[in-house]
Amino acid sequence: MSVAGPVVCFGEVLVRLAAPDNELLLQSPTLKVSFGGAEANVGVSLARFGHAARMLSVLPDNGLGHAAVDELRRYGVDTSGIAFTPGRMGLYFLTPGAAQRSSQVLYDRADSAFSRGACAIDWDAGLAGAGWLHVSGVTAAIGPETAKAAVEAVKAARRLGLTVSMDCNYRATLWQAWGGDAPAILGEMLSQADLVFGDHRDIALVLGASFESGQGADGLRRWAADMAFKAWPNLARLACTDRVQHTVNHHELAGFLFSRDGAWRTGSRTMDPIIDRIGGGDAFAAGVIHGLLTGMAEADLLEFAVAAAVLKHATPGDLNLATVADVEAVRSSHSLDVRR
Amino acid sequence: MSVAGPVVCFGEVLVRLAAPDNELLLQSPTLKVSFGGAEANVGVSLARFGHAARMLSVLPDNGLGHAAVDELRRYGVDTSGIAFTPGRMGLYFLTPGAAQRSSQVLYDRADSAFSRGACAIDWDAGLAGAGWLHVSGVTAAIGPETAKAAVEAVKAARRLGLTVSMDCNYRATLWQAWGGDAPAILGEMLSQADLVFGDHRDIALVLGASFESGQGADGLRRWAADMAFKAWPNLARLACTDRVQHTVNHHELAGFLFSRDGAWRTGSRTMDPIIDRIGGGDAFAAGVIHGLLTGMAEADLLEFAVAAAVLKHATPGDLNLATVADVEAVRSSHSLDVRR
Amino acid sequence: MSVAGPVVCFGEVLVRLAAPDNELLLQSPTLKVSFGGAEANVGVSLARFGHAARMLSVLPDNGLGHAAVDELRRYGVDTSGIAFTPGRMGLYFLTPGAAQRSSQVLYDRADSAFSRGACAIDWDAGLAGAGWLHVSGVTAAIGPETAKAAVEAVKAARRLGLTVSMDCNYRATLWQAWGGDAPAILGEMLSQADLVFGDHRDIALVLGASFESGQGADGLRRWAADMAFKAWPNLARLACTDRVQHTVNHHELAGFLFSRDGAWRTGSRTMDPIIDRIGGGDAFAAGVIHGLLTGMAEADLLEFAVAAAVLKHATPGDLNLATVADVEAVRSSHSLDVRR
Amino acid sequence: MSVAGPVVCFGEVLVRLAAPDNELLLQSPTLKVSFGGAEANVGVSLARFGHAARMLSVLPDNGLGHAAVDELRRYGVDTSGIAFTPGRMGLYFLTPGAAQRSSQVLYDRADSAFSRGACAIDWDAGLAGAGWLHVSGVTAAIGPETAKAAVEAVKAARRLGLTVSMDCNYRATLWQAWGGDAPAILGEMLSQADLVFGDHRDIALVLGASFESGQGADGLRRWAADMAFKAWPNLARLACTDRVQHTVNHHELAGFLFSRDGAWRTGSRTMDPIIDRIGGGDAFAAGVIHGLLTGMAEADLLEFAVAAAVLKHATPGDLNLATVADVEAVRSSHSLDVRR
Amino acid sequence: MSVAGPVVCFGEVLVRLAAPDNELLLQSPTLKVSFGGAEANVGVSLARFGHAARMLSVLPDNGLGHAAVDELRRYGVDTSGIAFTPGRMGLYFLTPGAAQRSSQVLYDRADSAFSRGACAIDWDAGLAGAGWLHVSGVTAAIGPETAKAAVEAVKAARRLGLTVSMDCNYRATLWQAWGGDAPAILGEMLSQADLVFGDHRDIALVLGASFESGQGADGLRRWAADMAFKAWPNLARLACTDRVQHTVNHHELAGFLFSRDGAWRTGSRTMDPIIDRIGGGDAFAAGVIHGLLTGMAEADLLEFAVAAAVLKHATPGDLNLATVADVEAVRSSHSLDVRR
Amino acid sequence: MSVAGPVVCFGEVLVRLAAPDNELLLQSPTLKVSFGGAEANVGVSLARFGHAARMLSVLPDNGLGHAAVDELRRYGVDTSGIAFTPGRMGLYFLTPGAAQRSSQVLYDRADSAFSRGACAIDWDAGLAGAGWLHVSGVTAAIGPETAKAAVEAVKAARRLGLTVSMDCNYRATLWQAWGGDAPAILGEMLSQADLVFGDHRDIALVLGASFESGQGADGLRRWAADMAFKAWPNLARLACTDRVQHTVNHHELAGFLFSRDGAWRTGSRTMDPIIDRIGGGDAFAAGVIHGLLTGMAEADLLEFAVAAAVLKHATPGDLNLATVADVEAVRSSHSLDVRR
Repeated sequence: MSVAGPVVCFGEVLVRLAAPDNELLLQSPTLKVSFGGAEANVGVSLARFGHAARMLSVLPDNGLGHAAVDELRRYGVDTSGIAFTPGRMGLYFLTPGAAQRSSQVLYDRADSAFSRGACAIDWDAGLAGAGWLHVSGVTAAIGPETAKAAVEAVKAARRLGLTVSMDCNYRATLWQAWGGDAPAILGEMLSQADLVFGDHRDIALVLGASFESGQGADGLRRWAADMAFKAWPNLARLACTDRVQHTVNHHELAGFLFSRDGAWRTGSRTMDPIIDRIGGGDAFAAGVIHGLLTGMAEADLLEFAVAAAVLKHATPGDLNLATVADVEAVRSSHSLDVRR
Repeated sequence: MSVAGPVVCFGEVLVRLAAPDNELLLQSPTLKVSFGGAEANVGVSLARFGHAARMLSVLPDNGLGHAAVDELRRYGVDTSGIAFTPGRMGLYFLTPGAAQRSSQVLYDRADSAFSRGACAIDWDAGLAGAGWLHVSGVTAAIGPETAKAAVEAVKAARRLGLTVSMDCNYRATLWQAWGGDAPAILGEMLSQADLVFGDHRDIALVLGASFESGQGADGLRRWAADMAFKAWPNLARLACTDRVQHTVNHHELAGFLFSRDGAWRTGSRTMDPIIDRIGGGDAFAAGVIHGLLTGMAEADLLEFAVAAAVLKHATPGDLNLATVADVEAVRSSHSLDVRR
Repeated sequence: MSVAGPVVCFGEVLVRLAAPDNELLLQSPTLKVSFGGAEANVGVSLARFGHAARMLSVLPDNGLGHAAVDELRRYGVDTSGIAFTPGRMGLYFLTPGAAQRSSQVLYDRADSAFSRGACAIDWDAGLAGAGWLHVSGVTAAIGPETAKAAVEAVKAARRLGLTVSMDCNYRATLWQAWGGDAPAILGEMLSQADLVFGDHRDIALVLGASFESGQGADGLRRWAADMAFKAWPNLARLACTDRVQHTVNHHELAGFLFSRDGAWRTGSRTMDPIIDRIGGGDAFAAGVIHGLLTGMAEADLLEFAVAAAVLKHATPGDLNLATVADVEAVRSSHSLDVRR
Repeated sequence: MSVAGPVVCFGEVLVRLAAPDNELLLQSPTLKVSFGGAEANVGVSLARFGHAARMLSVLPDNGLGHAAVDELRRYGVDTSGIAFTPGRMGLYFLTPGAAQRSSQVLYDRADSAFSRGACAIDWDAGLAGAGWLHVSGVTAAIGPETAKAAVEAVKAARRLGLTVSMDCNYRATLWQAWGGDAPAILGEMLSQADLVFGDHRDIALVLGASFESGQGADGLRRWAADMAFKAWPNLARLACTDRVQHTVNHHELAGFLFSRDGAWRTGSRTMDPIIDRIGGGDAFAAGVIHGLLTGMAEADLLEFAVAAAVLKHATPGDLNLATVADVEAVRSSHSLDVRR
Repeated sequence: MSVAGPVVCFGEVLVRLAAPDNELLLQSPTLKVSFGGAEANVGVSLARFGHAARMLSVLPDNGLGHAAVDELRRYGVDTSGIAFTPGRMGLYFLTPGAAQRSSQVLYDRADSAFSRGACAIDWDAGLAGAGWLHVSGVTAAIGPETAKAAVEAVKAARRLGLTVSMDCNYRATLWQAWGGDAPAILGEMLSQADLVFGDHRDIALVLGASFESGQGADGLRRWAADMAFKAWPNLARLACTDRVQHTVNHHELAGFLFSRDGAWRTGSRTMDPIIDRIGGGDAFAAGVIHGLLTGMAEADLLEFAVAAAVLKHATPGDLNLATVADVEAVRSSHSLDVRR
Repeated sequence: MSVAGPVVCFGEVLVRLAAPDNELLLQSPTLKVSFGGAEANVGVSLARFGHAARMLSVLPDNGLGHAAVDELRRYGVDTSGIAFTPGRMGLYFLTPGAAQRSSQVLYDRADSAFSRGACAIDWDAGLAGAGWLHVSGVTAAIGPETAKAAVEAVKAARRLGLTVSMDCNYRATLWQAWGGDAPAILGEMLSQADLVFGDHRDIALVLGASFESGQGADGLRRWAADMAFKAWPNLARLACTDRVQHTVNHHELAGFLFSRDGAWRTGSRTMDPIIDRIGGGDAFAAGVIHGLLTGMAEADLLEFAVAAAVLKHATPGDLNLATVADVEAVRSSHSLDVRR
């Protein structure tokens, strides 16, 4: 999986507006603002890991869109692939949860500059010189135009010889809002991918299959990998996590990786307290991609990816700002005491 | 102009997201949140003045919409006329200016629950028992559906025997966004009004007339009143202000009131520094309406309305939270020193 | 227990001034302000659950008193029963604890407008049209005037045919400050109640009885219920909780409900981390009242009440702002993951 | 006026709770906390000018009282003369004004530990070793006990040979709250003073005299000095200011000083914008006392005192934290540009 | 003055730690953090104006140094010319002034990574491909090593055919701290410059000349230009401003530009209130450079540069984040009212 | 160990600049500022426990140095032993960790006023009248001058008959930065001490000895005490803690105390969540010193010291602001519930 050019991340960049200090939404009159989006999260993390990462997206030509580009550039992402058009910024409002109170995301991304403009992207230009394309199922979930764009993107990438990775990121409410045929569209995307992030729920949904519950995390994910490798000949690897949630603030996370001839899993890592749960999956994905790009052994890269996700959960915001050294420190964790 | 029932304010309630501490938009990662909208601003001010005020609107059935209702109720507005529907909240992003840097409003209200749902309002129910309807031209400017609703609203109010007041609030960018025929639609609304807030620019626009510049604030507003009374037989009064802007933070404000047989103006009041310029016109409108509802003499009520507007400029947020006593204190201003 | 009119909550509304960010009181020069008071907390929670709730209280006619009314109105409580008088606002300063450091409440409510004015309330007017009266023992604890008012309130309510609920809320330091005869006064109130919130410590104190320790939470509360039903013929139900405190931030909570012919308890729910412990008992009380008002089965309503209390502990401030749907989500908790 | 020992400041220390960011009281749920009180303000300013300053006061033995002592000690005031007793802290809520909106102080100091305990002060012990006593008329205004204490304080000081300074600080609402005979009590205090801070309004009130308006700031203050020197044989100097208020944020200030054989005044200094108006008079008083303690010539010390007051108006909080060097910089003001 | 490659800005990037909300330094326990430095300020402004700008500097290889690079990159500056070395970050503490209280800068930049490492820069590599070099006299003022580096930088740039601009930025305290020969070193730098930012005080200092005061801003700056053109044959243009300071918050600013055969000046622009005075000169410099890079006529570019400086004074932080459109809006200022 | 005069704490006072709200360093543009330093922390804690504590140090004569003195004075420390010199303030930047992300300290204290000026301290004057000297190994670690000063300090104290306590506080990175011979210098200091805070790692390092791992906390600390008593005849007591770190936020702490004829240890106390881990060891040291100064029995004082450390971990900042009563409350902990 040798890769010559930058990793291109195609997807929507969102402004996140979050209630502060464990409050309910607008309980007090302040919102904390940051930026995110599944693919941008992966792009930033890869840039922090030292890779060339390019964002391919569409943003509104206003103060919000430009601030989003500034933020991506701040963390070293190449923003030359972002087009500015008239329109509105995709937003989401976040009420972080606590204890038994779940976090809530209120999407306000309908009719955004991205969802209107993604179809107009020139894929040959946007992917020029790149070695890898990363996409997410959430792009297809937004609406018919972005679904079309997402399918075109992965097809163009494969045609151009890029490695393609895809995170399923199934969002039921988004698909239901426009009645999109998630299995068909996600399946078309997945058939182009070399690397897929998804578990038994994703695979079952796309393939219309059903799994036996009660067989444990290992069995379920093994089943998913078997089904996926059978269904999609291009697929080389499938990665996913198992998340056990004791409370909103206390989870355990284990990582799984499957190739056509191997399987790896990590032990469970405790995350308590979780500072910010959003973007944990994207941090894991970036960790796996980093491992593949740098030729790490599978067991190794999986440990790295889980440690990256653990670190993300300990950091505010969607973005995993950790460097490789930061992740290695968590992975080894000789000491948890103050470093001076 | 005796009025039996509550004042109904029909229009959109917006969430305002403002950059803090004189910063540019998203210069730092925080936004201050408040609520506004031309008609809600008038409703809150009237409630604080002790009048029964009822909001007639549509809001999304989510955390933002419910927070908006909570905020109106906090200040004593009757929110029983607000319908919750699926959809998104109308937003606007504000970058308050300073010195020579103008304030900037970035509207993000397209396709809001209000703009989709305003047409479905049952006017007879919504206006039941009311004595007064207040509307704004900004509602008509949002799009064809809200324009239709705005025209229906004033017609229903007149049919039901309510006093009708309207603030022209011409917003060129909103009208241009959908190519609405502002003169025709605003004219249809204005023809139903007993009280209009507007100056020579508004009247000229609607009537397709042109005024001679260079004749000073008094002449221009006299001309506007003459034109308006000629055009619209229902019209009993026209009120407006003259604003001289030395810097973004330092304005002077004078008030004008015209009836068919009289004219009044106040002296100029200095506002320096301006704490928050948004909602100044709405505070003036509420002051005039308050004066009429309580039977104040014209010269008196105009002084009151200008003092209310001055006080609003010294208060953060869109809403004029001043009581009648607060306004009277500014109006008389024996002393500006600390009150203990 | 069918109830026709609104639930009236009689008691003092307090301003709470809390140290921010786990700091000691005035460690840094900022206080976070909110509103509370045992009965107001119940009133707000009931209003958020969709019930008509009316506050019966006295507040100072100044900026603090009016802000308190605004806040209650914000959450839907009918504030028409609140009188404004000269005087001062009841305050309390809160230093939230952490780990092994207990939270501390510094009351500054002596000589408040409420404590001076509660005696002057016209109970027939204040309770007019109501179906339920909720009071708390804390009102009686403030001083002789409020004790007298509290006794009068429950007597008037019973005379007028209202359902009466009372939370014992024994506060030793308040009673000791003026040497009030807590057992006699609380006993007089309790004898009028249909529903009492209190455990073995409360009942033992009021009845001058003593219980055998070492018999566990179930036995102690069973004993309390037996004693209470024997002592007070009007009493139909007694509810309470068992709270096990591992650290300041980590508690377990179980609920108990007794009728003259039945007993119910819930399993223990873990609360970790606790965001704000204040108002947990009031949230439980509101949950029980909601269950009774809506005719839920006992086991059901007890689960609901505990879930409501659990949710309150995960929310900043005294007030439980949760809706019925929010509580149901915690109660069922299929998933603790982000809701999108 | 040679002075051997420390300057003792007798009076109440208050917690100030101020609305932030030009907001109305509790418009948002945060208060900024600081400490003040006329005499404490003078004490802190003198300590920052390098003098030994001792506070003589009574504070509640709780977190607020101890935080107040900590804050005075932080700025170098000797707090050994402060007694801790049970009781409550004196508070005041401040809504800073802007433009035409006046600042508002809401006192909440009735029945404080100070007002209850001031009478029990042992004056001989409290003034032991001191060279100067500074008091304010506001102490006498709080209630009969503090009025008695204030009179005793100045009598003891004169008996012990201390220099006595007094700031009239007439607060009508406080006097009216308990019906105190302000002229008699203030007059008794003033008769013991060597140095008085007061203008024609104060002198007229105390002496039951009336002045002719329309004679300008100079004439009015000359009249006041003449009356005062005639009435009170102990009086050596009278100092005051003339404040012209263009807006809440833009004042001009000039200083006046009278001895039995001389008169001095400064030019007017512009204060725009005023950051915090509270404590301006106390800063002036401390400046005059500093000048007398260090033997500055009258013209000089008056310029210093006005510059100190100007600097206070440019500093948040009640306390003038300026050093002598800071004041001298404002007084000379060769340049207003950034100092690097 | 046609320029092919990017503008290189050579100098130190500093972390600025500023007291918030008009407070004195550490009056409350918070500092607002931003980034600056004379040359970085010019670089960011040029990048925001759409030019290729490259920073040439040395930063410590720690969290502060990397955050500084992130911030420059955020605004579009090419940071590939920044070397990371062990060492400390240059800091400055800012206490923003108000009214008559001057702002104060406390430098803490001694022994920084930049001051240790500037000498090791490879000028040929650092300036490779560039069209312009901008430097400031403040770099030479830091110490002997940076002085040597600054002289080498301008010599290398001239040797390589770059256009050289230099802002004198005389800082007496820095020069005095190490006893540097400012006239000699600045003179050596100035002799290499095509464009100089400096006024009569700078020119007199460097050339050991003296000017007649009392001849007004025009005469003094004309004299400075004459002296400069005579002394330095490479010099093509000299630009400077005249700043009249009414208070710390209220200045007037006019711009001057001289070439060997022409002179231009703008009218005075009022800046009131000034939000942040730091970086005003750098914004002016960037405006002039922008004008020259884009071939604007002299009168035009001077108006642009002054408008840029005016806008900077209305923006928090050292950096002028304005776009060309923002500056043009200030320059034309048809209206100061809210833009919607 | 009877002690007549105050406890003198000799060492550097530092400004701490911490990232807020679990953020990474400069993730958002704010830093929370407080003060610390191992010896100042002990001094403040002792002063809060009611002992006379005097700081002996050197600070820069600028706004930061004076703010540091103000803060120590705020909490009752005698600051008369602090000299002001030109120079810079010692700083440290703190990124508090969370879950698996360790806290990070970035020291920026090289070349501070303290490190330059500590050698010039007149020990006879600085220790005059004192009964106890407390020092820390971190002072010796800063550089050769402070190492020399630290050795001189303990020698002078012993010569003058003071009790000497020393906390080893080994900081490898500081020692390595200048190549100091830690074992030799620390050993010279330790040979003068009556009371040492250190564990097996410290003792092994200083004595060049090695311990057998695997023998548990008790065995290791017993070994350390035996070695220490053998090596240093002046030594009367050795105290230390055992810290087990489950996550960054969840530790367990036990205390150990050894005399020449006795050994004591406490049970383990859980700290979860840890609010601020910095200064925990200093709080323990102050607890032990308090116990010795007040003649508590060994088992008792050790419990007190551990409770003090536990309380510190529940309090933001370096300083343990707890009073004796606060510590006793944690030590007994009858109840963790809200205290009213």
